[in-house]
Parts: sequence; structure tokens; C-alpha cells
Amino acid sequence: MHIELAENYGFCFGVKRAIKIAEDNKNSSTYGPLIHNSKEIARLEQDFKVGLSDDHKSFKAGDKAVIRTHGIPKNELQELKDNKVDVVDATCPYVTKPQQICQEMSEAGYDIIIFGDEAHPEIKGVKSYATYGATVVTCPKDLEDLKLKERIALVAQTTRKVEDYMEVANYLIPRHKEVRVFNTICNATFENQEAVRKISKKADVMIIIGGKNSSNTKQLFSISDDYCQNSYHIEDENDLDYGWFKDKLFCGISAGASTPDWIIQNVVNSIQENVNK
Amino acid sequence: MHIELAENYGFCFGVKRAIKIAEDNKNSSTYGPLIHNSKEIARLEQDFKVGLSDDHKSFKAGDKAVIRTHGIPKNELQELKDNKVDVVDATCPYVTKPQQICQEMSEAGYDIIIFGDEAHPEIKGVKSYATYGATVVTCPKDLEDLKLKERIALVAQTTRKVEDYMEVANYLIPRHKEVRVFNTICNATFENQEAVRKISKKADVMIIIGGKNSSNTKQLFSISDDYCQNSYHIEDENDLDYGWFKDKLFCGISAGASTPDWIIQNVVNSIQENVNK
Repeated sequence: MHIELAENYGFCFGVKRAIKIAEDNKNSSTYGPLIHNSKEIARLEQDFKVGLSDDHKSFKAGDKAVIRTHGIPKNELQELKDNKVDVVDATCPYVTKPQQICQEMSEAGYDIIIFGDEAHPEIKGVKSYATYGATVVTCPKDLEDLKLKERIALVAQTTRKVEDYMEVANYLIPRHKEVRVFNTICNATFENQEAVRKISKKADVMIIIGGKNSSNTKQLFSISDDYCQNSYHIEDENDLDYGWFKDKLFCGISAGASTPDWIIQNVVNSIQENVNK
Repeated sequence: MHIELAENYGFCFGVKRAIKIAEDNKNSSTYGPLIHNSKEIARLEQDFKVGLSDDHKSFKAGDKAVIRTHGIPKNELQELKDNKVDVVDATCPYVTKPQQICQEMSEAGYDIIIFGDEAHPEIKGVKSYATYGATVVTCPKDLEDLKLKERIALVAQTTRKVEDYMEVANYLIPRHKEVRVFNTICNATFENQEAVRKISKKADVMIIIGGKNSSNTKQLFSISDDYCQNSYHIEDENDLDYGWFKDKLFCGISAGASTPDWIIQNVVNSIQENVNK
């Protein structure tokens, strides 16, 4: 069986940057998981003594708090600063952007629509910046019963599929005087998605590696599943079932933006050792 | 044969307003045709002595110039004012709006894309307001070779089909950081189009009445033709061919925004007299 990695996959700029920041700040703690990959977080804890707290109130004056790639709500960031916590911001710059847009557009009088997952930390953070509130939607149906202003600003979770975003834009534009559409889906997401689309069209079996709560990994799996019916989302090599590869000729592999290379390599090695012999 | 008018058709707010302005300004001249309907223009000339000049330089100080519903280029308007011509502005307010948007967005640093017909007077006028220039397109293909900025402002000719406008928006949004989509297609256009879509689905034969160079009439015909293969665009009853109605049971009728009721009535009467007996 031929094994091939997608042309683009894995760690993005924002994740690499955040890990570098964490490694440079030994004996700190992140507020919430730095990235959506528990294995990499365990590595940071073991090798760099970077802890993890799920409560921003646990940080005291002088503590060092690393802000996760997904960002945090505006008021919590302010509280940390007010409490003299030493804040080290590892928010991905591509997430800071929609936060800023929400604040500016809200204060300029636009109704803010955020396309994304209301329960995802990135979106909780982004939404908190809309001074006069924002509505989070996942599809045009969510917009049907809303009473909105004539002027709308639209932003997207950085890890979403552009086709789904366009459905929301296409619903709003004919119904409003002005829709400012901000393309806040990040390039790495876009490139990883394009690459998985390409390889899944020719693969017999597709393995998508990434955290189960990683939004961008879930989108990669959704695209892969559209083109290759034998698509599997795994966190690491322990989730592999070698029965998946029986009689298959071409195995495509991709990984989410928070999946470290060493996990990807473990998966490839495991498949090669157990299937390709 | 049953004859039925579309639920919405004919004269829009801007045309009614312009005709009222012209009627209130006897012995004036319009610069270019006030509306795209030569019969109505002939009526204004005969009954209200409202002339027509195709050259703005023909107006002298003290002359009264009525500005057509479609608007005129910014520099020509300025020239008329500089030359002390008495300017009476009958530009449709729904056309003034995209003019203003072009100027504001151009000065705010956006690249301006206008969806419409470059040769149409409305678009010549709208484009002239983009201080740093604008590009006029009719479809996504026209955008392929352009080098554009990251921030785009998009406006539409008031009389275009919203579906075609969305194709242009859908091309631009994934390729740019921000696209401000202004929905400048006017409501009357939208309502007339919806109504023609509805009636043409059930009609055996469709008659669309309006000037041959009327943009909105051409769009109505295009929609009608999508649903009813026996669709005909006529200027008045003299263009009718009664053979069109042979063995037909349901004749639908619509008319462009610049088609006066008296022409529509003449068409209906002619069909009734010549076919329904």
C-alpha cells in the first residue's frame, strides 16, 4: 500500500508560535489548553514545566499566565491584568484579527454575525470583543428568525470551511443594505483543506490525525469524508485499526493544525510496520 | 386565452418621481433620455415641452437642465453648475446611493468593483464618482486577471439580477481580506423580477414590455425566458405578432420600470381585441 501525506498538513504558524512561547516560558501555566492536542500539552508539561489551569481566577499576582492560541474573553484578560498576573499572550494573530474586527464594527454600529461554534473557546473570545453583542451562527437557518440592522459585519471562525461561510454570506447579502464580509478563515486552514480535498479524491483510505475537540481537524475530516468513504479521524497511532487498510492501495494522511510532527510520524511508522509488510 | 399582469411591474418610484419633475419643469431639456422609453419621452415633449439634448455643452447659462434618472458623470454635472445652468436633478435616489458609496469607499482606500454594464449611462455616472477609479465587471471571469487590493467595495447597477451579483461576490470574498458588499439593486427591480419569475412559471406565453435599451426590462426578459420559452420583449403593441398566441391558454405580462401604464394598457387591449375573440 502506498502511503502519502497531503501537500499541506499539521502545525500552522499560530501553533508553532504558541509552542515556542510556551517553551520560552518554563514554570508558567496556560489558561485553558494552549492548543487542542493533549499529547503535545503533556510534552510541554513534562519537558518545560508548563502547567495548565482551567480557571483564570487561579492565577495570582506575579504568576505567569500563557494565553492559549484560541484567545480568551476580553473581560477575563482584563481581570488577569488587573490582578497583576504576568500575561504572556500566545493568541494566534489570526484570531486577534476577528477580535479587533468585532470590536471596531460593533462600535461603528454594525450588527455582528460570527460564523462558527458558539461553544469553541476561539468564538467565546471573539464574541466577547463585540461591544454591543454578536450573534453566532453555523448555517443560514440560524439567521431566519433574527431581527438585524441594515448594516452587517460578518466574521468567521479561523478554522471553518469557506464553502459553509459563503452560504451564510449568500443568505445575508440580498437581505441587507451592506454586508462587510471579513475573510478571517486563516490561510493554513485554507491550504490544509485544499490539500486534503485533493488527496482524498484519489485515496482508498484517509487518516486524519488531530485532537477530537480540534475544530480544524474536524473540518479536515468532513472534507475527506466527502470524497473518500474510508476516512478516519484519530488522535494518535493507538486509535488505528489495521483492518481499515485491508486490500487498500493508497492511504492518504493529513493532520490538524495542532498535531505535532512526532505524532504524525508515529502514525506513519505504525501503518508501515503493521500493514506494509 | 387568459391574460394576467405580474403582481409587480412597470413604473418604479424613481421613474414616477422623474416624470413628475419633468412635468413640473415645462420648457426645460433633459440631458440624455430622462428614462429608457422613447414613447414616454415623446409624450413629455408634446404635452410639457420638455426637450432632449445629448450634449451637456449645449446648455447655456440660465438654461434649465433636467438630469436623467440614471444620473450623469460627476465632472459633467460640475461643468453644468460651473456654467450657471439651472440644474434640476431627477437622478433616482437609488442611483445617487451607489454614486456616494463609490466616492466614500474609493477615498477610504478600497478598490471599487461595479457589477453592471460599462456602456450604460447609470454605470458611467456611478463609476465617475470613484475618486481613484473603479472596475466594471459583468461576471467573475472579468475579475480573473485583475490585481486588486486586499480590501474591496462592491456595488451593483440598480437593475441587475441578484443571483448574478452574488456570483461576483462569491468570487471575490474568498480571495480578499474584506469585501464590503453593498446591495444597491433597487427594491422595485427585485420585486418586478420576483413577480416575473412567479408568473412566467405558469404562463404559456410571456410579453415583456419596455425600451430595447432598458437594462431592467432586459433582465425581466432574461428571467421570463428562463421559465417560459415563448417569451417576447416588445416596446409597444406595434411589435406584437398575434401568431405568438396561437393555441395558448395563459398569457403573462410584465413591463420594465420605465414603461408607462398607458403603453401596457394598449398592449393588453390589442391582445384582447385580436386574440381573445
